[in-house]
Amino acid sequence: MSDIRLINIKEEILSDNLNIAEAVRSSLQRDKVFMLNLMASPGAGKTNLLLSTIQRLKSDYRIAVIEGDIDSMVDSEKIAAQGTKAVQLRTDGACHLDAPMIDAALQTLDLSELDLVFIENIGNLVCPAEFDTGAALKVMILSVPEGDDKVLKYPLMFSVCDVLLINKIDCLHYFDFDKELLKERVWRINPDIKIFEVSSKTSEGIENWCNWLKSEVEAYRKNS
Amino acid sequence: MSDIRLINIKEEILSDNLNIAEAVRSSLQRDKVFMLNLMASPGAGKTNLLLSTIQRLKSDYRIAVIEGDIDSMVDSEKIAAQGTKAVQLRTDGACHLDAPMIDAALQTLDLSELDLVFIENIGNLVCPAEFDTGAALKVMILSVPEGDDKVLKYPLMFSVCDVLLINKIDCLHYFDFDKELLKERVWRINPDIKIFEVSSKTSEGIENWCNWLKSEVEAYRKNS
Repeated sequence: MSDIRLINIKEEILSDNLNIAEAVRSSLQRDKVFMLNLMASPGAGKTNLLLSTIQRLKSDYRIAVIEGDIDSMVDSEKIAAQGTKAVQLRTDGACHLDAPMIDAALQTLDLSELDLVFIENIGNLVCPAEFDTGAALKVMILSVPEGDDKVLKYPLMFSVCDVLLINKIDCLHYFDFDKELLKERVWRINPDIKIFEVSSKTSEGIENWCNWLKSEVEAYRKNS
Repeated sequence: MSDIRLINIKEEILSDNLNIAEAVRSSLQRDKVFMLNLMASPGAGKTNLLLSTIQRLKSDYRIAVIEGDIDSMVDSEKIAAQGTKAVQLRTDGACHLDAPMIDAALQTLDLSELDLVFIENIGNLVCPAEFDTGAALKVMILSVPEGDDKVLKYPLMFSVCDVLLINKIDCLHYFDFDKELLKERVWRINPDIKIFEVSSKTSEGIENWCNWLKSEVEAYRKNS
């Protein structure tokens, strides 16, 4: 049965992955580089959120972005157009980024010249949740048009993340989306998650999120 | 290297899967049951689209729905509430449905009492594209808030599907979404794909899509 075989392999892969993620994390700590892993569905607004965030942080920090994409380079081109260093990982079909891929991407960068690395993971609420990349912070986006029931359907993603950004909050009036119900559902499985309401389009909430992120980066640098 | 191991296993799994998918397809043909595999991102509107479609087809056909979900049963409860037979497949972490799962679900149904089976796949634009379920028709939804660039980023899904439903077309005015550019990009990699613009919210285009689907079901039943 392919089922049983799959599970064994997956356990081995996850355990190999965790070892490499720990090594990545230690190496980033040595160089006081803060790495953030951003995850979401396709079209939730990862790239635009990164662009708005980088815009507000680039005077304070030296930033690079690792872009995961199955096939194209459209996102890294947008990041590079804004003047930020981008490393494109083409996964050729794989539906998530893992620690070996991130390790390979980091090898192409000079960590001593960086303060902050953003990972834009593959658009997928399932598998990326299972793979530790070595990042210090796991952030997910849920956009309003996706619906408030997604936490029931993709609970692992909501439970492993440190931060939930509710994006496209500007179109709340247009969709049948119960913000308070969503938060209640999220906090039930992850009481420590930090939630921000944001919109890359109108900039609502972006300042708030960036200020919080800055304080996290500062705390990390002090403790590294 | 986990990479190499992964690829070998995947090839084996895909080939085992294809054999079972062919057997499923033959068995459905024997009973003149038409099966449709519906795929999309989380929150693109799969369940609501199914509800609207079933509403219009249930006087003509005996229908069942196979619902894939990682953890919850919310979607099958909605389907059952509408009076349609639903089989819930809980994948317990797996990010796609495969032919053995569909085979198991079909075993619980009496095919001689059915005309039409809808599969609602896991919300994911990546892996479901790789796994043949034995369905006669592969349909994907892309919703307007997800953006017109998704075909560049998830090309396999757009190239394996027979039909693309552009959903939430009612909020086209609100998003920066170039419908014609999307179609051009899709047709470039899949010239035969049939495209419908729909909205489960306003019912726009649903009639059109359902009429086309009916004609496909009729043609299938004649040729089985």
